[in-house]
Amino acid sequence: MKQGKSRWLVAAWFGIFMTLAPIAAPCGIDPLPSWNDGPNKKAIIQFAERAEKEIPIGERVAVFDNDGTLWSEQPIYFQFAFALDRIKSLAKDHPEWNNQEPFKSVLSGDIKALMATGEKGVLEVVAASHSGMTTDQFSQILKEWLKTARHPVFKVPYTDLVFQPMLELLAYLRGKGFKTFIVSGGGVEFMRGFAEKSYGVPPEQVIGSSGKLEFEMKDGKPFIEKLPTVDFIDDKAGKPVGIQKFIGRRPVAAFGNSDGDLQMLQWTTVDHGSGPRIGLIVHHDDAAREFAYDRDSPIGTLNKAWDEAGSRGWLVVSMKQDWKKIYPKVHKP
Amino acid sequence: MKQGKSRWLVAAWFGIFMTLAPIAAPCGIDPLPSWNDGPNKKAIIQFAERAEKEIPIGERVAVFDNDGTLWSEQPIYFQFAFALDRIKSLAKDHPEWNNQEPFKSVLSGDIKALMATGEKGVLEVVAASHSGMTTDQFSQILKEWLKTARHPVFKVPYTDLVFQPMLELLAYLRGKGFKTFIVSGGGVEFMRGFAEKSYGVPPEQVIGSSGKLEFEMKDGKPFIEKLPTVDFIDDKAGKPVGIQKFIGRRPVAAFGNSDGDLQMLQWTTVDHGSGPRIGLIVHHDDAAREFAYDRDSPIGTLNKAWDEAGSRGWLVVSMKQDWKKIYPKVHKP
Repeated sequence: MKQGKSRWLVAAWFGIFMTLAPIAAPCGIDPLPSWNDGPNKKAIIQFAERAEKEIPIGERVAVFDNDGTLWSEQPIYFQFAFALDRIKSLAKDHPEWNNQEPFKSVLSGDIKALMATGEKGVLEVVAASHSGMTTDQFSQILKEWLKTARHPVFKVPYTDLVFQPMLELLAYLRGKGFKTFIVSGGGVEFMRGFAEKSYGVPPEQVIGSSGKLEFEMKDGKPFIEKLPTVDFIDDKAGKPVGIQKFIGRRPVAAFGNSDGDLQMLQWTTVDHGSGPRIGLIVHHDDAAREFAYDRDSPIGTLNKAWDEAGSRGWLVVSMKQDWKKIYPKVHKP
Repeated sequence: MKQGKSRWLVAAWFGIFMTLAPIAAPCGIDPLPSWNDGPNKKAIIQFAERAEKEIPIGERVAVFDNDGTLWSEQPIYFQFAFALDRIKSLAKDHPEWNNQEPFKSVLSGDIKALMATGEKGVLEVVAASHSGMTTDQFSQILKEWLKTARHPVFKVPYTDLVFQPMLELLAYLRGKGFKTFIVSGGGVEFMRGFAEKSYGVPPEQVIGSSGKLEFEMKDGKPFIEKLPTVDFIDDKAGKPVGIQKFIGRRPVAAFGNSDGDLQMLQWTTVDHGSGPRIGLIVHHDDAAREFAYDRDSPIGTLNKAWDEAGSRGWLVVSMKQDWKKIYPKVHKP
């Protein structure tokens, strides 16, 4: 009988363990180990714990900007680096580009002259590098680029430059029942090329700027072509619009780093019913480990949103003070 | 000691039960009780069982048309009935409508004359009834309408006219790890008004036609306005485009009922890698319990997609033969 009883004991303990394991596991472990203790970390944890209790699970929607919020964006947006590389590799089929702006400046590596061509020039570069192919072909080209391209300062693949503290925040919120979305001015097909692997955000939860698409059957096979026309710009006032188009409900948590995120932060936190809401701005003030820029930077301008943060109660996170580490691995410039 | 031991026994059984319950529950229960046994039901179950084994969970994407696939669409699209009711209730502020097409025909109840105004007239009715308000106001108006409006033939709320066999199919596929999306020519904001409650599909998994939106701050409060301009038509070749825009990966299962679903069925099943794929067409052939229409119907035309079903291996489901019941409750016309 003794052996019989101990078998039951094992079964009982196993059963209790299996029942309690999912509840007991997280206790006592710091969910945000790369965040220094302080008021910002405390406010994030308080928000998440209140949200878990007070907000129905389907309404726990968190939106994250990408460039400058989840990964770096200097010295130029990484997608723009992709566009320039793509133009260079297409140039052999376009001899006329050597004498034609904005391509001439791209090919001679004169970024300043390229920028002088203005929005029209930049859009031409984006269109030429992001269209004229099927969505499948684009995925393949992007995959290859992500593998081979290197950041000009850190000399590592661009996907090594994601922010470790934000990866922890994404995972922490998902653990609290949040659905995490990317809502970015960046191209949606570009971000989908790495968002699942890098951030754990599946393609259907990535919202971004996009070009028009066209479906067609060629030789009995279906394709979707990427056209050179802009369809939607998911930036500034476009961000709440993108959220409404794609998600259809107001988020309760928004994370950004620049004035491009101002309206998304407003839509998430201002006059938005009762219950916990959070708005957070990542401030790039760490020239030693990353980059330092804000009000006067042409990329990632942080001005109006910073001014509004105080009265709105948005957290302003100092990369220098609040983050123990920036990237998963240390990179020396 | 006897009591002590029996306490352990209870604990052990409880533990084993808690551990096995989620696995054991579905065994032996018919997951599709409203479907008659036959080749279509068998093919659906075989597909789902293979998909569960062979397709990684994130790629188990199933897309469902709404009108005529998840609920009825006769004698007119239900959203169009909403638009007509809305025009009638707005008419008191628009005395000029009494002498102005297409509104004149709407107000006199002359649907035939309204249809004679063509696409332009119909779009005017949709624009006037679906814009000029915030997204929140639209939700409220729609909620009230869904509660009070009655179907002209069955005299029940429109949401009573969802198809019971399709509700079972949605739940069954979700149980097999599928993410279920609606991909419909209907308005996205209209469908989101009931999709979660009626189908268990959350707003962020509803893809549809849409009008342009605009974000603004009024008196320090954020709003999104619905504008009278068409943004996207999620029908025919627009369906694969909508799938790419919103989901960003190809579905492995598509369910429709008309030629509007042809390209979505092609995109899902034709030349789409290896592994199980399913395309299914609901054929409205049950005049006694619902409606009978196909090739010549102006609403829900089923012609080209039906012709193509054989060579593509798409299942054609007869509502009369395959479905034990149509609606959750029986409705007498």
